[in-house]
Amino acid sequence: MKDFFTVTPLHAVFEKIGGFPVVGGETVPLWEANNRILAEDIVSDMDIPGFARSTVDGYAVCASSTFGASETNPAYLTLKGAVAMGKTPDFSVFAGEAGRISTGGMLPPGSDSVVMLEHANEIDDATLEVYKSVPPMGNVIAEAEDIPKNQTVLFAGTRIRPQEVGLLAALGKERVPVFKKPVIGLISTGDEIVDIQSRPGPGQIRDINTYTLYSQIQNAGAIPKIFGRAADDREPLLEKCKTALSASDMVIVSGGSSVGTRDLTLEVIAALPNSEILIHGISISPGKPTILARADSKPFWGLPGHVASAMVVFDRVVRPFIAHAAGMDPSRNPRRPRISARLSRNLASAQGRTDFVRVKLEETEEGLLARPALGKSGLIHTMLKADGLIEIDANTEGLEKDAPVSVIPFQGI
Amino acid sequence: MKDFFTVTPLHAVFEKIGGFPVVGGETVPLWEANNRILAEDIVSDMDIPGFARSTVDGYAVCASSTFGASETNPAYLTLKGAVAMGKTPDFSVFAGEAGRISTGGMLPPGSDSVVMLEHANEIDDATLEVYKSVPPMGNVIAEAEDIPKNQTVLFAGTRIRPQEVGLLAALGKERVPVFKKPVIGLISTGDEIVDIQSRPGPGQIRDINTYTLYSQIQNAGAIPKIFGRAADDREPLLEKCKTALSASDMVIVSGGSSVGTRDLTLEVIAALPNSEILIHGISISPGKPTILARADSKPFWGLPGHVASAMVVFDRVVRPFIAHAAGMDPSRNPRRPRISARLSRNLASAQGRTDFVRVKLEETEEGLLARPALGKSGLIHTMLKADGLIEIDANTEGLEKDAPVSVIPFQGI
Repeated sequence: MKDFFTVTPLHAVFEKIGGFPVVGGETVPLWEANNRILAEDIVSDMDIPGFARSTVDGYAVCASSTFGASETNPAYLTLKGAVAMGKTPDFSVFAGEAGRISTGGMLPPGSDSVVMLEHANEIDDATLEVYKSVPPMGNVIAEAEDIPKNQTVLFAGTRIRPQEVGLLAALGKERVPVFKKPVIGLISTGDEIVDIQSRPGPGQIRDINTYTLYSQIQNAGAIPKIFGRAADDREPLLEKCKTALSASDMVIVSGGSSVGTRDLTLEVIAALPNSEILIHGISISPGKPTILARADSKPFWGLPGHVASAMVVFDRVVRPFIAHAAGMDPSRNPRRPRISARLSRNLASAQGRTDFVRVKLEETEEGLLARPALGKSGLIHTMLKADGLIEIDANTEGLEKDAPVSVIPFQGI
Repeated sequence: MKDFFTVTPLHAVFEKIGGFPVVGGETVPLWEANNRILAEDIVSDMDIPGFARSTVDGYAVCASSTFGASETNPAYLTLKGAVAMGKTPDFSVFAGEAGRISTGGMLPPGSDSVVMLEHANEIDDATLEVYKSVPPMGNVIAEAEDIPKNQTVLFAGTRIRPQEVGLLAALGKERVPVFKKPVIGLISTGDEIVDIQSRPGPGQIRDINTYTLYSQIQNAGAIPKIFGRAADDREPLLEKCKTALSASDMVIVSGGSSVGTRDLTLEVIAALPNSEILIHGISISPGKPTILARADSKPFWGLPGHVASAMVVFDRVVRPFIAHAAGMDPSRNPRRPRISARLSRNLASAQGRTDFVRVKLEETEEGLLARPALGKSGLIHTMLKADGLIEIDANTEGLEKDAPVSVIPFQGI
């Protein structure tokens, strides 16, 4: 009749995030900046573009020279020359004049707009017929229109996407200040667990959690580091935990799921220097027996052994702690999108507990249907079938068939 | 008055995908299989689990011994021993008997269910009081319940997520057959483009597209390979294209956006051995001047030079070709989720053309709002502001404020 612990509500677990440190910074070549977290604000040191550019192929003109022009009443302009790409034009364009220009070309002095190729016709080498008027700045990107000089264009804590890489390229940033990727130490325990190289004997199963967590850590933008498997013995497990702790920014112990393994994990955490158990049990399902400690100021997790539980707890609980350690600023990044769907069946849920239900998404004529992939949390096939999770909060007793739900898709490319 | 080309509707572009080859296979260690594409079907060579396991900490029993048990009328069972984790139990449990068992433990012969710890009490070393009945197979994962032997559990063409890695671990697959990552050659052109190391002079801009495309190719699960910048000259560009083609599975020429660059690209493609222009212009916005050719049986792209155009065309047009080359089977993978939102304003769109509008998502009390990040497609800041795209199909003339829209989120972690 032991195993009574005080479970913590999910929101209270997240309140612990701020108590943990953020990793340091480093600089990386721009080629490697994609998907990293920016560690410093970026201020533009130049106007982009540095000159007025044409957005079309056509003729640079003074807009006023084209006012009133039409098919029946064209404007006639004098052709002054052609703008060479990448060069300052060697001629100017004033009222009644025009110059050939390509997309991206620099507007000649005097001109303020570009007539599109298809709205004009060269009737001889020196004369252009224009059939349509163009407003001032028409078909032009003004100097500094994209990014003005001395503007904070990116903020620390932003995850760098391809477009942020593009902006950094535009500013000539060959090296980018980013946060280091947190190193997450992985230890597996449990006397019933064998390496995947072995054929499991009676009562044994292969070490699945190390592999699923390794992959989830990669997807979370961190570096997984394997410290191997420990039998359920205090001394070897304690040694492994100490080694992992000194070489990682966070440690996850996982694998065994018995109360014996859990008690041992708690005992080992207590024996670590500067350690404190913060959470012992979370009011979520699956994943209730999750442990969070602080050891040497780092987060130290004991994850449930059931494979689906460990995956769900990683995604819904551990990942935000990794994002924090990695320097990610939630206000600077869009949250993972939710997908609206309808529930395929009634779903019971206990009040006072946050439930995460694995669902498969199905496209139907009435829209997306979320079909619960029900099954024990020790089964991996429920995770294989599922496209994501729905969250049933602690104040909801259950959901009815056809209820609108928000599906949290599993991470991916 | 040249530059009149016959634009191809978007759906007709995708019909070309099947005409291109898929890369070959390789095997990788399971550690590196996450996010790769499986190249062969996987058949289970064993039952998982290989034995009936307990899903809770408690007592293995014959369910019938507990029928009718309650707080006021407990069942009394004889304790036979404790199941050691990872071992075959050295005792059996028949009617009227019980054995201590931990989560993940192997059920002793004779037992068919497990009473949870909190529903029982050991009144002495040999006697267990049970307060609640358990049904047959209650709190048990049956032998082979997760994955039965000789079942095709994963199919070629599936992108491997953490849960697929877990399944492969459960089956002991130390090495996994996957498709190679396609190598995508990148060439940039345009006389106005300078390397990012240079400070652009008048009329010049830095080479942004190489960097945005490099990052987008990474996110698409392929390997970007840079072949550098070529001025708008036939011979050096042709040489670069030949080199890129021989060393890549697909080539993208990008950078310059003028009609001159485009004409040159077409001329160079025509000069490549075994080449054929398949598409010259797509009825999409942005991105109309996109070129697709087949050269040496590989896809060869000319992307528009405007940075936002190139990014949108990559995401909406090129990426499905990369997924095909990479061996991805669309029927085996969930498509990228769409996010339901309401449009913040009226939006015009030309009929006969598919429009991709960059939008920022805003959470409001009435739900998600999609706010168009309007601006010229030569501006990168419209991409920086945006969280995704909405697609307005060729048969729609425009959308009204508050219309429900599906937002295609930009890819990410």
